[in-house]
Amino acid sequence: MAKIVLSVNAGSSSVKISVYSVASHGAEPRQLAEAQVNGLTAPPPQVDYCRQVDKEEEGTATTVTVYKNEPLDHVKLDGKSPEIQSQEDAFALLLQLFVNDPELAAIQSQDDIAIVTHRIVHGGSYTEPQIVVDDTYAHIEALNDLAPLHNARSLDIVRSCLSKLPKATNVACFDSQFHATLPPHIRTYPIDPKIAEANMLRKYGFHGLSYAFITRAAAEFLGKDVQNTSIIALHLGSGASACAIRNGKSWDTSMGLTPLAGLPGATRSGSVDPSLVFHYASDVGGLAPASTSDLHISRAEEILNKEAGWKALTGTTNFGDIAAAGPDKPGHQLAFDLFVDRVCGFVGSYYVSLQGQVDALVFAGGIGERSDRLRQAVVEQCACLGFSIDKTANEEAAHAAGTVMDLTSKSGGQHRVLVCRTDEQLEMAREGSANEKLWRS
Amino acid sequence: MAKIVLSVNAGSSSVKISVYSVASHGAEPRQLAEAQVNGLTAPPPQVDYCRQVDKEEEGTATTVTVYKNEPLDHVKLDGKSPEIQSQEDAFALLLQLFVNDPELAAIQSQDDIAIVTHRIVHGGSYTEPQIVVDDTYAHIEALNDLAPLHNARSLDIVRSCLSKLPKATNVACFDSQFHATLPPHIRTYPIDPKIAEANMLRKYGFHGLSYAFITRAAAEFLGKDVQNTSIIALHLGSGASACAIRNGKSWDTSMGLTPLAGLPGATRSGSVDPSLVFHYASDVGGLAPASTSDLHISRAEEILNKEAGWKALTGTTNFGDIAAAGPDKPGHQLAFDLFVDRVCGFVGSYYVSLQGQVDALVFAGGIGERSDRLRQAVVEQCACLGFSIDKTANEEAAHAAGTVMDLTSKSGGQHRVLVCRTDEQLEMAREGSANEKLWRS
Repeated sequence: MAKIVLSVNAGSSSVKISVYSVASHGAEPRQLAEAQVNGLTAPPPQVDYCRQVDKEEEGTATTVTVYKNEPLDHVKLDGKSPEIQSQEDAFALLLQLFVNDPELAAIQSQDDIAIVTHRIVHGGSYTEPQIVVDDTYAHIEALNDLAPLHNARSLDIVRSCLSKLPKATNVACFDSQFHATLPPHIRTYPIDPKIAEANMLRKYGFHGLSYAFITRAAAEFLGKDVQNTSIIALHLGSGASACAIRNGKSWDTSMGLTPLAGLPGATRSGSVDPSLVFHYASDVGGLAPASTSDLHISRAEEILNKEAGWKALTGTTNFGDIAAAGPDKPGHQLAFDLFVDRVCGFVGSYYVSLQGQVDALVFAGGIGERSDRLRQAVVEQCACLGFSIDKTANEEAAHAAGTVMDLTSKSGGQHRVLVCRTDEQLEMAREGSANEKLWRS
Repeated sequence: MAKIVLSVNAGSSSVKISVYSVASHGAEPRQLAEAQVNGLTAPPPQVDYCRQVDKEEEGTATTVTVYKNEPLDHVKLDGKSPEIQSQEDAFALLLQLFVNDPELAAIQSQDDIAIVTHRIVHGGSYTEPQIVVDDTYAHIEALNDLAPLHNARSLDIVRSCLSKLPKATNVACFDSQFHATLPPHIRTYPIDPKIAEANMLRKYGFHGLSYAFITRAAAEFLGKDVQNTSIIALHLGSGASACAIRNGKSWDTSMGLTPLAGLPGATRSGSVDPSLVFHYASDVGGLAPASTSDLHISRAEEILNKEAGWKALTGTTNFGDIAAAGPDKPGHQLAFDLFVDRVCGFVGSYYVSLQGQVDALVFAGGIGERSDRLRQAVVEQCACLGFSIDKTANEEAAHAAGTVMDLTSKSGGQHRVLVCRTDEQLEMAREGSANEKLWRS
């Protein structure tokens, strides 16, 4: 019997839930609806909600938008406007939207939800999704020490589901698990091995749900088996990373022990001299105001994760504005050039690490999928590696149909250049429903 | 009239002085002698001293070794053994060796020394060597805040020279000055620009005296003008860095605000997730025991600079032992593979940054000049960029004559592979005596 699977993604300022129907074990999830609360840290919050309507005679689905950037006080549930203070509240609201929507026949009550998959940023040494029961929850909670800025919000929602959705199975999907294959000489930091082991200090890498999706989609597009597909993938968004994928598996990636390392992001410095922060402000080792008795966040980590990146250079987190700015905004130009430089550095580095055996350079993520100017600048800088881009295909990629678009120059680059519309929610539904145990009853 | 120029290099555990004669403004310095005290932090200290003897009829010089690894209590000066507690003491001893040596005719007394060039690691925004007078001293001393682990020792000797060698001109040569040409999008960190400016936070880069020497030597070897020479240079020693040199000028380099960033070294972590150290030990923002009331060194900086690197992984600082170890020492193999990976990452990154316009990949520094196994591993990993190495030339490079050796495969790599015997002391003598003001009287 088909199962209803929810994919839950809690960001710093948003909660998003996608609803899927999975017909049987191993079947591709079919999206039924998607809803999101934005602006939790910049009130008033806004709600998006859309649902897919099957056109059975055509075998396709159309999307019906119920809410689009709707301020919370316009949303009525049981005759009153909901109040939202936290990610947990937002999750409860979205759940109620689904249950109360008569057009979403698949969810008549909460009990119709069979599986809830949760995106957890830091999975420590977990190599695959985990069904969450009390002791796995405790283990995952312990990872908060490694990633207090990233895991805590998702765990609040997991805990809430454990108590409020007793009929559903909760599955934790980790952004780090795709990178379990990093070889020792790449994942090891040159520090005291005893302390590294005791404190779990190594390169983990993140954006793994996206890279798993990208690898599968690129392999399918190229007509190759995943295990014979080698790509350099760039997940470029407010958080940005690069990944060298060798024969379908993660070989190197730019994020590290935490998502701070590697490329800069909207508010993140990326890799900087590890001593920089000690020259930035005094007492950076002290606790940040955002810390709680359970969660210790140093002021240094707060500065480098929340007060840096292109927002610090330009005043905006919107990379589209930065890419579109002319020479009258030198700060924007500097941020753009800096980002292109850092991205190309990883492309060159991974090209060597893969010994030139690269089927494609793949752009994904909000910026990777939308900024043709960024893609053009990166590919042109990397021309010496045998990449070249078709100007028209690049400009039209945002409006093209499909999951993967080919931007390779018609005159033929040595390696392909692709854009992939990555879908972490779908990947979570796939991975979260893949466990055979979930289908036995 | 010829001037006697001393090049002084104070390391953490050693002081080295090279003595040169410079015939006239712009003439190439001719080495007369070289002496060194080692083991300051691992007593008893040892002394090396050799002098060059001209063979006028042949136009060549031979080297006479006076002391080689001689324990300090075997060295008699004025009938007694000297005692050494500090870099200043070591400097005073070496000076006395020169003055007391009747065979070193050029230095009959301290007053014969015209110029003393001092290697200073961090030069902040200085773009060229500085003649040190009281106010430049104060300015340079202020840079201690940026590099307390690196500048302090050299400054002790500069101060000592200002008082004890009143007839000599002191010239500060900075390891950062070669990198004054880094373009803004490469030298900028994506952090708050106001704080960056106020606190002088940007990429500076180091090993610049070596890179200046390497650039000139490689250009001469290739028969090109320096300003048309583009290379990827690797200065690999206990401290290791990489540099992209574009048309004779530094375009990018792996060290950053301090020498900590970039490649790992003997006891240095190189670039790691900037949040790693906060998970390594508690209170890492506090002062290290090595701090003084004037010099603040955080425990974090001490851990990453002094307690990491391949010493932490293997127990030895000797990279030769690491490269020579077999599979029975997996820690050594891991450290070797890790170092090759990080070096190749920079080669790939800089290859793209230079858009493939690379005349040569140049190895230098203690490891770069001596470890044929390291060079072979790096070049083989970078074969996809058009580098290839001649096995025999590589193995024989350590015994070959000359400053630059060509290791390019006979079958012809697309780009040259060179080894350069870099000479920071000679570069200091050149740069320190180049100021026309010094030759007016």
